[in-house]
Amino acid sequence: MELFETMIQHTSVRSFTAQKLTLELKQQLILAAQSASSSNFLQAFSIIAITDSKKRKTIEQLAHFSVDNGNNGEFYVFVADLNKHAQVLAQHNEPSDHLRTIESLIVATIDTTLAAQSMAVFAESEKLGVCYVGGIRNDLFKIKELLDLPPLTYPIFGLFIGYPAEKNEVKPRLPIAAMLGTNTYRALTPALIADYDKKMAAYYQQRTTNNQQAVWSEKVRHHFDSPRRQDTGDFLKEQGFLF
Amino acid sequence: MELFETMIQHTSVRSFTAQKLTLELKQQLILAAQSASSSNFLQAFSIIAITDSKKRKTIEQLAHFSVDNGNNGEFYVFVADLNKHAQVLAQHNEPSDHLRTIESLIVATIDTTLAAQSMAVFAESEKLGVCYVGGIRNDLFKIKELLDLPPLTYPIFGLFIGYPAEKNEVKPRLPIAAMLGTNTYRALTPALIADYDKKMAAYYQQRTTNNQQAVWSEKVRHHFDSPRRQDTGDFLKEQGFLF
Repeated sequence: MELFETMIQHTSVRSFTAQKLTLELKQQLILAAQSASSSNFLQAFSIIAITDSKKRKTIEQLAHFSVDNGNNGEFYVFVADLNKHAQVLAQHNEPSDHLRTIESLIVATIDTTLAAQSMAVFAESEKLGVCYVGGIRNDLFKIKELLDLPPLTYPIFGLFIGYPAEKNEVKPRLPIAAMLGTNTYRALTPALIADYDKKMAAYYQQRTTNNQQAVWSEKVRHHFDSPRRQDTGDFLKEQGFLF
Repeated sequence: MELFETMIQHTSVRSFTAQKLTLELKQQLILAAQSASSSNFLQAFSIIAITDSKKRKTIEQLAHFSVDNGNNGEFYVFVADLNKHAQVLAQHNEPSDHLRTIESLIVATIDTTLAAQSMAVFAESEKLGVCYVGGIRNDLFKIKELLDLPPLTYPIFGLFIGYPAEKNEVKPRLPIAAMLGTNTYRALTPALIADYDKKMAAYYQQRTTNNQQAVWSEKVRHHFDSPRRQDTGDFLKEQGFLF
């Protein structure tokens, strides 16, 4: 029951205290990530702990990401990874064609994300705060160079973890009627959008930090009114994926 | 601390008792899923609860998935969903081009998988057993028809949840040295593959059910020696994604 309460209080944290994580806790975070399910037990992911302050700064800059007091937290980059499997096949001079498909790319993306969320949920159960950093995909080519990523890998997101100094109020989620179907897909309707926008407007007006006049649908429109991360496809192709 | 112990005991469950989930617990599973992080708060996923026994059977058959006593468990299909955002844009006669990219596809895949793993971890903390069913991607066109999936959605996996009748022993994961780098990517080496194969051989020989002569690297070779789910790309294109 306690875990449920922790989970539904989840918000991203961007401000941390001076408390550092113990070595034991850091080891547990990795084991928690590894304990997640994996498609056909391929374990198609790697984790890179960013401890070098120069590399961390470079990543934070290109991801447009900054945290207060972030030097006390841990920063992990999660990498979808079929290079391991290419190594296995290479030992036997076998072709890696079937690693290169969009299906394989999806498998690796799923495996990596399952591992990350196991780490994140465990971290929050230990009173840590977390923040996913999708902004590392802003410049995939630079991240590749910085972390020496081999073919058939791609960095999906960063995960920042530390002790929270402050937290935003929890954002109301889409109404259940807009995301849960029974036996069939349930579409988002204009009425549901309008209802949810009202709820989100109240949230944004009332929250303690960064309060604003905003609704969900306007944020969605703004998000998709210009192209985002246009080189993701080119990067994946350069990494050896074929689609 | 208790959650950590639960997590590292994770194995997929395919055999369930007669105990059904309470309505309250089912509601909590959905709320736990919704509580996960979401890229730019897009919430790009839907969940479909499969309660119709005919539909469940159809999905189990095409996914080559069966569980003992599965009629007592819950079966959810997780759908990556940018159709919601297309609805928002359509209300304002705005183009949906930027929803169609591989970058958007990745965002929706991540959002959906984060939600699923929050549900799975919460379920296990409540002594439930879970099993991901990637096999629903064996026939995406049929699943689309069965669940009436609109454009800009794709079904990623099923998640089966019930009270476990029996559990396999926990599979040893890849050695930390093969998946955790510090500041740089760490490659899987022949020596690490050999070490891990020994560990996995011992696991497969000793486990209580379905024990076998097997090692990880052979399973990887076998997995990738023929093409898998070759219509994933075509399906995604039919659903409106461009790559």
